[in-house]
Amino acid sequence: MKLVIKITGKFFDMEGDKSSLLSSIKELIGLGHRVALVTGGGGIARRYIDLGRTLGLNEASLDLLGIWVSRLNALLMAMAMQDLAYPKVPESLEQFMEFWAHGKVTVTGGFQPGQSTAAVSALVAEAISADYLLIITTVDGVYSADPKRNPNAKLLPKVTTLELKNILESSQSVRAGTYELLDPMAMKIIERSKIKVMVMGLSKIGSIDRILKGEETATIVEPV
Amino acid sequence: MKLVIKITGKFFDMEGDKSSLLSSIKELIGLGHRVALVTGGGGIARRYIDLGRTLGLNEASLDLLGIWVSRLNALLMAMAMQDLAYPKVPESLEQFMEFWAHGKVTVTGGFQPGQSTAAVSALVAEAISADYLLIITTVDGVYSADPKRNPNAKLLPKVTTLELKNILESSQSVRAGTYELLDPMAMKIIERSKIKVMVMGLSKIGSIDRILKGEETATIVEPV
Amino acid sequence: MKLVIKITGKFFDMEGDKSSLLSSIKELIGLGHRVALVTGGGGIARRYIDLGRTLGLNEASLDLLGIWVSRLNALLMAMAMQDLAYPKVPESLEQFMEFWAHGKVTVTGGFQPGQSTAAVSALVAEAISADYLLIITTVDGVYSADPKRNPNAKLLPKVTTLELKNILESSQSVRAGTYELLDPMAMKIIERSKIKVMVMGLSKIGSIDRILKGEETATIVEPV
Amino acid sequence: MKLVIKITGKFFDMEGDKSSLLSSIKELIGLGHRVALVTGGGGIARRYIDLGRTLGLNEASLDLLGIWVSRLNALLMAMAMQDLAYPKVPESLEQFMEFWAHGKVTVTGGFQPGQSTAAVSALVAEAISADYLLIITTVDGVYSADPKRNPNAKLLPKVTTLELKNILESSQSVRAGTYELLDPMAMKIIERSKIKVMVMGLSKIGSIDRILKGEETATIVEPV
Amino acid sequence: MKLVIKITGKFFDMEGDKSSLLSSIKELIGLGHRVALVTGGGGIARRYIDLGRTLGLNEASLDLLGIWVSRLNALLMAMAMQDLAYPKVPESLEQFMEFWAHGKVTVTGGFQPGQSTAAVSALVAEAISADYLLIITTVDGVYSADPKRNPNAKLLPKVTTLELKNILESSQSVRAGTYELLDPMAMKIIERSKIKVMVMGLSKIGSIDRILKGEETATIVEPV
Amino acid sequence: MKLVIKITGKFFDMEGDKSSLLSSIKELIGLGHRVALVTGGGGIARRYIDLGRTLGLNEASLDLLGIWVSRLNALLMAMAMQDLAYPKVPESLEQFMEFWAHGKVTVTGGFQPGQSTAAVSALVAEAISADYLLIITTVDGVYSADPKRNPNAKLLPKVTTLELKNILESSQSVRAGTYELLDPMAMKIIERSKIKVMVMGLSKIGSIDRILKGEETATIVEPV
Ligand SMILES: Nc1ncnc2c1ncn2[C@@H]1O[C@H](COP(=O)(O)OP(=O)(O)OP(=O)(O)O)[C@@H](O)[C@H]1O
Ligand SMILES: Nc1ncnc2c1ncn2[C@@H]1O[C@H](COP(=O)(O)OP(=O)(O)OP(=O)(O)O)[C@@H](O)[C@H]1O
Ligand SMILES: Nc1ncnc2c1ncn2[C@@H]1O[C@H](COP(=O)(O)OP(=O)(O)OP(=O)(O)O)[C@@H](O)[C@H]1O
Ligand SMILES: Nc1ncnc2c1ncn2[C@@H]1O[C@H](COP(=O)(O)OP(=O)(O)OP(=O)(O)O)[C@@H](O)[C@H]1O
Ligand SMILES: Nc1ncnc2c1ncn2[C@@H]1O[C@H](COP(=O)(O)OP(=O)(O)OP(=O)(O)O)[C@@H](O)[C@H]1O
Ligand SMILES: [Co+2]
Ligand SMILES: [Co+2]
Ligand SMILES: [Co+2]
Ligand SMILES: [Co+2]
Ligand SMILES: [Co+2]
Ligand SMILES: [Co+2]
Ligand SMILES: [Mg+2]
Ligand SMILES: [Mg+2]
Repeated sequence: MKLVIKITGKFFDMEGDKSSLLSSIKELIGLGHRVALVTGGGGIARRYIDLGRTLGLNEASLDLLGIWVSRLNALLMAMAMQDLAYPKVPESLEQFMEFWAHGKVTVTGGFQPGQSTAAVSALVAEAISADYLLIITTVDGVYSADPKRNPNAKLLPKVTTLELKNILESSQSVRAGTYELLDPMAMKIIERSKIKVMVMGLSKIGSIDRILKGEETATIVEPV
Repeated sequence: MKLVIKITGKFFDMEGDKSSLLSSIKELIGLGHRVALVTGGGGIARRYIDLGRTLGLNEASLDLLGIWVSRLNALLMAMAMQDLAYPKVPESLEQFMEFWAHGKVTVTGGFQPGQSTAAVSALVAEAISADYLLIITTVDGVYSADPKRNPNAKLLPKVTTLELKNILESSQSVRAGTYELLDPMAMKIIERSKIKVMVMGLSKIGSIDRILKGEETATIVEPV
Repeated sequence: MKLVIKITGKFFDMEGDKSSLLSSIKELIGLGHRVALVTGGGGIARRYIDLGRTLGLNEASLDLLGIWVSRLNALLMAMAMQDLAYPKVPESLEQFMEFWAHGKVTVTGGFQPGQSTAAVSALVAEAISADYLLIITTVDGVYSADPKRNPNAKLLPKVTTLELKNILESSQSVRAGTYELLDPMAMKIIERSKIKVMVMGLSKIGSIDRILKGEETATIVEPV
Repeated sequence: MKLVIKITGKFFDMEGDKSSLLSSIKELIGLGHRVALVTGGGGIARRYIDLGRTLGLNEASLDLLGIWVSRLNALLMAMAMQDLAYPKVPESLEQFMEFWAHGKVTVTGGFQPGQSTAAVSALVAEAISADYLLIITTVDGVYSADPKRNPNAKLLPKVTTLELKNILESSQSVRAGTYELLDPMAMKIIERSKIKVMVMGLSKIGSIDRILKGEETATIVEPV
Repeated sequence: MKLVIKITGKFFDMEGDKSSLLSSIKELIGLGHRVALVTGGGGIARRYIDLGRTLGLNEASLDLLGIWVSRLNALLMAMAMQDLAYPKVPESLEQFMEFWAHGKVTVTGGFQPGQSTAAVSALVAEAISADYLLIITTVDGVYSADPKRNPNAKLLPKVTTLELKNILESSQSVRAGTYELLDPMAMKIIERSKIKVMVMGLSKIGSIDRILKGEETATIVEPV
Repeated sequence: MKLVIKITGKFFDMEGDKSSLLSSIKELIGLGHRVALVTGGGGIARRYIDLGRTLGLNEASLDLLGIWVSRLNALLMAMAMQDLAYPKVPESLEQFMEFWAHGKVTVTGGFQPGQSTAAVSALVAEAISADYLLIITTVDGVYSADPKRNPNAKLLPKVTTLELKNILESSQSVRAGTYELLDPMAMKIIERSKIKVMVMGLSKIGSIDRILKGEETATIVEPV
C-alpha cells in the first residue's frame, strides 16, 4: 500500500528516542508498503517565527521560517534512513512527485506559506493516490472538542470531515504556525479526493501496521 | 506603489486585442509603480483538464495541467513585455520572491494543486507587502449573488471578506478548475494580512490608474 | 530495444480516445523495450504562436510558445503513464539524458527555438543510441510529393535521406511552427548517426510491435 | 545597440595576450552597447572529442564534450570581465535569456549537440533582437572559396546568405566539431529573422566599434 | 569597499534585540559599501547535531545538519533586510557568486561538511576580492590563549596568521561543529590571498564603520 | 563494498588507452561493489589556470577553472560508462549524495576553491561511509620523502596520517592547483572519520580487486 505519515513537529522537540519512527517506517517498508513522511516544524519553528516577528517580518516570511524548520526536521529523518530515503527534501509538490518516482521513502516538510504541513500531507496523499494518510499528533485522535481546553472532550473512533469541520471551527486560527490538526486546505483536498485519514497519538508510532490491520484503534476521518 | 494584478484566464480565450493589458502595465510602471501579474488558465486549461480526466488522472494531476496552462499564459505576457518583465515564470512563491527581487514585472501562473490563481495572487500580495491586489475578472465586480445564475444580483461598491464568504458559500465547489472568484486560501491570506483588494471587469484594464486614484469604481473588498 | 516514438502534435487536437497511445507504449514496455516519447505541439501551439504574433514577439519567442505547448502535451502523457514514466518533462537534451537514466519512459516536447520536435526526436535517438526512431504523423508515411497538395503522390515503402531531402526541398519553410516532417537538423542527425527511421500514420499506433517485426508496413527512411 | 560577438575557439588555443577581447568589450560597453559573447571550443575541444572517440562515445556525447570545453572558455572570459559579466554560463537559450535580463554581458558556449557555436550565436542574436552579429574567425572574412584549400580565393566585402550557402556547400561536413563558419541552423535563423551579420578576422578584435561605424571593413552577410 | 561580515551562530541563541545587526548593515550600505553576511549555526545547530548523533549519522551528515541551521539563520537575516538583500541563501561558493552579482547584500550560511562558517567567510572574501573580512565572535578579539580556559589570556591588538595558528593549535578539534575561530581552511585562504581580517566582539556590531576608520579597536590578523 | 577511487588528473594528459580504468570499474561492479570515481584536473587544468592568471583572475576564480576541467574529465568518464554511471557531474557534496542515491557509479570532479580533488574524494568517502578510498596517483605510493626531489626516498607499505603530515609538511604549498597528494582538508576528514586509504600508482588500475584482497600491494594510510 501507499502510505503518507504526517508526524507532528513536537516529536522533534521532545526528549527521548527518535529512532522509534525509523524502525516503524523500516518495518512498513519490509512489509511491502511505500511510505511518504511529512514532518512538522514544532517548537524550533515557533522560536524562529517569534524571532522573525521581532524583526518585523510579514506573515509570508514568518511562514517560510516555519517551513524551513520543518524541512530541517525532514532532512534529519531522511539522512537517518540512509539508503531507504531520497536524500533531498522537496520544496514543492511538483518536486515531491519527482523524488517520489525514485522508489524510496520521500521525506518532506512544508511547501508554501498559508498552509499547514497537514495540508502538505493531504496534497501528497492525493498526488500519489495514497491508500491511507496517517496523522500522528500530540493527542490520541480526534476529540469531541479541543482536549487541551476541554477536559471532558471525548475521543472519537470515527468522524466525518463535516463533523470535524464543525468541531474545529471555533478553535481554528490562521496566524503563522498556528493551524490546528487539519486546516481548510487539508480538509478540501481530503474531501475532493476521498482520502482515507487516520489520526493517532505518538504512542502509536510502533503500531502503524496493527492500526492498518484494524488490530489497534485510531480516529478514522471519513471524507464526505 | 506595489500592485498585484490578477487577470482571469478567460482573457486569453477571447477574441480581440491582448495589448491593452500590456499598455496598461507599461503605464503603471511609467507612473513609478511596481507590478506583479498573475494569469489564470481559462478555456485551454479546462480543455486539458477534460482531456486528462478521460485518461484517468487524479485531481492533483488535473490541477497541474491547469497550472501549466496558466504558466503558458504568464510566459506569453512576460515575453510580450520584453525588457520590462523577468523572462521566466516562477513555479512557487519562493521562486516568485527570487524573481521579484530583480526589480522587473514578474508574471506568474499557478503554484500548486488545490488552490486557484486567485489564491496565488493573494500569496504574492502578502509576500511583497503589496499596496493593492487588483482582480480583473469576467464580471464587473462582486455582486450580491452569482450574476451568472441570478440576473437580479446587484453590483456591490464595497463588501467585507465576511460578507463575501457568505455570498460565495453556496456556489463554491472544489473540483479541479472550478473555484470561483476567491477560494478559501485566498480569503484566509487576505484576511490575515489585511490586503486591500479591488475586483473589477475586463473593461477596466485601461483604467487601473484611475481606479487607484478613486476616479473610477470597482468593488472594494475589506478584510475583517 | 531502445525506441523513440515521435507523435504529431495534431494527435492532441483530435477528438476521440487518447489512451490508444498509452496502451501501445505499455505493450512495448511489457515486451522488454525501453521507450522515449516525443510530443509535438499541434493546434494549440499554432494558436499561441498566432496570439504571440499579434503581440509582436520575435521568432525565437514564438518558437518558445510552441515548445511550451509541446511540453504541456508531454506532461499530459507522462502523468497518464503514472509510475511508468519519469514525472517531469526535460527542457534540453542534457536534462533528457538525466531523466532517461532513471529507467522509465521519458516524455519530452521541444528543446530549443529553430528546430522542430522531429529534430528533438532525432537528437534523442542519437543520444540514447536508439534502435529505431518511429515517426507517427498525420499521413501514412513518406509520399513521392506532399500528399496534401498533390493527390497523385504515391506512398513510398522505402526512401533514402537524400531522396527525402529532394522531395521536401520545395515545400520546406522555416517560419516558426511550419517545418514539415523532417527539418534539416533532424536530417543531419539521422544521417551522421545512421539512425533507422520509420514513418507511419496515426492508425498504426496500436501496431508498432508488428511494424518492428516487419508484419505491417511503414515508410523506412534509409540514412545515406 | 545590442551586439552578439562570436569568437572562434581557436582564440583560446593561441599564444599571446587574451586581454584584447576584454578591452574591446569594455570599450563597446562604455559606448553604451549591450554585448553577448559566444565562445567556440577550439583545439581543447577537438582533443576531448578525440579522446572520447577512442572510448567509443556516440556523436551526441562527443558534441557534448566539445560544448563543455566551449563553456569552459566562456567561464574564463566571464570571470575575467568581473562585475561586467553575469558570472554563470548558460546551458540553453532559455537560460541565456534569463541571464541576459540582468543587464550584464552574458558569455555563452554551446547549447546542444548537432549545432555549432555559430548557430548558438545566431539563436542568441534572434532571441535578443540584436542589431548585429559579429563573427570573429580565423580568416579575414568570407572568401569566394575555402581559403585553406584554395589560395586564390578572394575576400568578399558582401555576400548574400544564398551565395554563402552555395560557397560552403561543397566543404560542409557534419561530424562532431567539424561544421565550418555557418552551419545550416545558423543560416536558417539568420535568414528567417533577417539578422545583420559581419564576418571578420582576429586582427579586428580591437576595431569592432570602427567596423560598426563603417570605418573599417568586414564581410557583410546579407540575409535573403 | 567590499566587506564580508561573519557573525557567530551564538548571536541567534541570545536574548535581546537582533535588529542591531540590521541597522549596522544598512548604515554600511548607506555609506556606499557592499556587504556579504555569513551566519554561523549556534546552539540550534548543536542541538540538531546531538539529535543526529543519537540516530547514528556520520560526520558528513552531522555537519550538514549544522550547515542547514546556519542557512536558516541566513534566511532570517536576508528576509529581515527585505529589498536590500538577495532573497535566497546560496548553497555553494559558485551560487554565492551568482547571487552576489545582483548588487545586493548576500547572506550565506555553511557550504560544505568539513569546514566552519569562518572558512566560508574566507572563501567568500577571496572570491569577491573583499577589502575586509570582519569576524564578529563571542569574545572581544584574539587572545594570547583561549580566554574560556585561561583567564589570564591577553587580548591582542594584532596577530599574524602564523602566530594565530600556534595559539589555536593546542585547542583545535575537528569533530562536527567544534572548530574554533579560524579552522585550517579559513587560515589557508586568508594566507594565500592576503585577506585583511579583523576579529571583534558582539558589542562592536554598531561600530563597524568606526573600526574600519581605525576609530575603534579590534584584533587585526595579518596574513603572512 | 563501497569504494571511492580518486584518479590523478595526469591520467587524462597521458598518451595511451584510457579504457583500462573503465574495464577496472566495470569489473569491480561485476563483483558487487559500488563505486564513486573522483577525477583530477591535470595538465589542461594547469593550462587554464595559467591563462586565467595572465588575465588577472583571483585565486578563487583560478581554482574554479581547475575545478571545471576536473568536471570535464568526470563527464568524459561518466559518458564512457554509459548506463553504469549517472550521466551528470555533481557540483557539490550535497548534489553528489543526490546522484549517488540512484545506485549507479557517480563520477565527480572538484567541488569548491581552496581544496584539492583529493579532499573531494575524502569528503565523498565520508559521506557514503565508504569501505575504502583508493588514491591512484603518478607515483607508486607514499614515499619517505617526495620522490620527485629525493631519488633515495623509499616506498612505504604503511604510514599513519600523522607520519604522512610530517612528510608532506615541507613540500606543501597552497597556490591554486598545487596541493600535493593529500591536502589538510583531506587529512582532517580521513582522520575524523577513520577512513581506510590506499595509495597506488597508475600501473595498478587493473589490479584494484587484487589490492583489496591483499594479493597486491599499495601504501596503506592509517588514520590516527
Ligand atoms: N457574488 C458574486 N459576484 C461576482 N461574481 C460571482 C459571484 N458569485 C459567483 N461569481 C462568479 O465568479 C466568476 C469569476 O470567478 P472565476 O473564479 O471564474 O475567476 P476568473 O476571474 O474567471 O479567473 P480564472 O479563470 O483565472 O480562475 C464570475 O464569472 C461569476 O459568475
Ligand atoms: N513527401 C511527403 N510525404 C509525406 N508527408 C509530406 C510530404 N511532403 C510534405 N508532407 C507533409 O508533412 C506533414 C507532416 O509533417 P509535420 O511537420 O506537420 O509533422 P507532424 O507529424 O504533424 O508533427 P508536429 O505537428 O508535431 O510537428 C504532412 O501533413 C504532409 O502533408
Ligand atoms: N568561403 C569561405 N570563406 C571563409 N572561410 C571559409 C570558407 N570556406 C571554408 N572556410 C573555413 O571556415 C573556417 C572558419 O570556420 P570555423 O567553423 O572553423 O569557425 P571558427 O571561427 O573557427 O569557430 P569555432 O572554432 O569556434 O567553431 C576557416 O578556417 C576557413 O578555412
Ligand atoms: N586565542 C583565542 N582567542 C580568542 N578566542 C579563542 C582563542 N582560542 C580559542 N578561542 C575560542 O574561540 C571561540 C570563538 O570561535 P568559534 O568557532 O566558537 O566561533 P564563533 O564566532 O562562535 O562562530 P560559530 O559559532 O558561528 O562557528 C571563543 O568562544 C573562544 O573561547
Ligand atoms: N612523500 C611522498 N610520497 C609520494 N608522493 C609525494 C610525496 N611527497 C610529494 N609527493 C608528490 O605527490 C604527487 C602526487 O600528488 P598530486 O597532488 O600531484 O596528486 P595527483 O594524484 O597528481 O592528483 P591531481 O593531479 O588530480 O591533483 C607526486 O607526483 C609526488 O611527487
Ligand atoms: Co478562477
Ligand atoms: Co533522479
Ligand atoms: Co513537425
Ligand atoms: Co538573477
Ligand atoms: Co565557529
Ligand atoms: Co592533486
Ligand atoms: Mg506539424
Ligand atoms: Mg570551428
